[in-house]
Amino acid sequence: MNYHILTLFPEMVLNGLHTSIIGRAAEKGLLSIEAIDIREYSTDKHRHVDDYPYGGGAGMVMQPMPICEAYDDLCGKIGKKPRVIYMTPQGRVFNQKIAEELAQEEDLVFLCGHYEGIDERALELIATDYLSIGDYVLTGGELPAMVMIDCISRLIPGVLNNDTSAEFESFHDNLLEYPQYTRPEEYRGLRVPDILLSGHHKNIETWRREQSIKRTLERRPDLLADASLSKKEAEYLKKLENE
Amino acid sequence: MNYHILTLFPEMVLNGLHTSIIGRAAEKGLLSIEAIDIREYSTDKHRHVDDYPYGGGAGMVMQPMPICEAYDDLCGKIGKKPRVIYMTPQGRVFNQKIAEELAQEEDLVFLCGHYEGIDERALELIATDYLSIGDYVLTGGELPAMVMIDCISRLIPGVLNNDTSAEFESFHDNLLEYPQYTRPEEYRGLRVPDILLSGHHKNIETWRREQSIKRTLERRPDLLADASLSKKEAEYLKKLENE
Repeated sequence: MNYHILTLFPEMVLNGLHTSIIGRAAEKGLLSIEAIDIREYSTDKHRHVDDYPYGGGAGMVMQPMPICEAYDDLCGKIGKKPRVIYMTPQGRVFNQKIAEELAQEEDLVFLCGHYEGIDERALELIATDYLSIGDYVLTGGELPAMVMIDCISRLIPGVLNNDTSAEFESFHDNLLEYPQYTRPEEYRGLRVPDILLSGHHKNIETWRREQSIKRTLERRPDLLADASLSKKEAEYLKKLENE
Repeated sequence: MNYHILTLFPEMVLNGLHTSIIGRAAEKGLLSIEAIDIREYSTDKHRHVDDYPYGGGAGMVMQPMPICEAYDDLCGKIGKKPRVIYMTPQGRVFNQKIAEELAQEEDLVFLCGHYEGIDERALELIATDYLSIGDYVLTGGELPAMVMIDCISRLIPGVLNNDTSAEFESFHDNLLEYPQYTRPEEYRGLRVPDILLSGHHKNIETWRREQSIKRTLERRPDLLADASLSKKEAEYLKKLENE
């Protein structure tokens, strides 16, 4: 996977992504992250990339030329026209399923907006996907791009040390994860549940599934409609619901 | 507002947040961002902060001691016990309303998890809020913390250059934003809509509202139920719906 990020803040995205697991995956050659500075494509001697909105109003709007020319330049270099994701609260809400679909691409472009937004023509000319990471407003598209890249990258084979990790997490079988404990056995008067120290794998597995079901019922009951439960687990859920 | 981020990657969060608008707000003293390295509180000579999960399973779990001791140290320094937000896909889904509520606090702690998660006892002992930025899985809590901090900071008076900007955006009156245009008048055969060049402010305002309504109908019809529309605008919407 090759990510190409069109941004006014190339250092921010590179610093943010070259840490931890994603950084290690880049070092291993499993993915590459390139930040393209839109300002490099300014035609203005002061390197401006924004101007006042036609029709008046507060703030500045990013001009279409530097963005479209940066994209054309990229397409020329890589010899294809990859999908261009524009991050906006107006877009389709990003989720795990969209991440899985995007993880299949060879190249992805993320176009990061700033100020009051981007000239509509730049979007008409190059944007293929409008995505939002949630119903909240941010100062720019950089953080949402980093969030999507982090989420997509976890799904690329070899990125997580452990192949089962990506699957066995948070939304496995549509259930939330069970509580985790590590050393010491007792901390500030709180003990690790005895069952986890028993060494009895089958009982531990049953306990963890029950904790997952209980937690999902408490925190995200909307998920339970699509949860995969055994007959015994379904009975356990019914018992909890009746309590 | 003083943000305190408990993390294993202090440079990542500082680099990511000290750019752009949030960085300028920190320089102006409107807010402060402190990253507390959990590893500094390791009691281990190798500075380990994680260990195998009790009961078996893939991955490593962050131990409770370094986290709780980092938090106690912070509370001692600032003389109070601020709210602690733990970022998890299991949490309440973050939105603009939660951001407005959090923007009222004087201090906020963000606890960033990594690996397979955090020992449950650390969460019981210090976490006050469980928040998720959306239904997707990430490699750690750092990016979600940065997203929330960016969103909350925009709402602090003085952070945006323009006081109206925070309001007049994306979700104003529950309508999506109208398209924006700036120079040049024509780019790659695409022209700025004539109305925006007319100088007729009342017509421009009407056109923009209609564009917002049209776009909301196309992309986020769920928002329209709570939109504030004039009688004329409601008629325009009805006409669009019938087309």
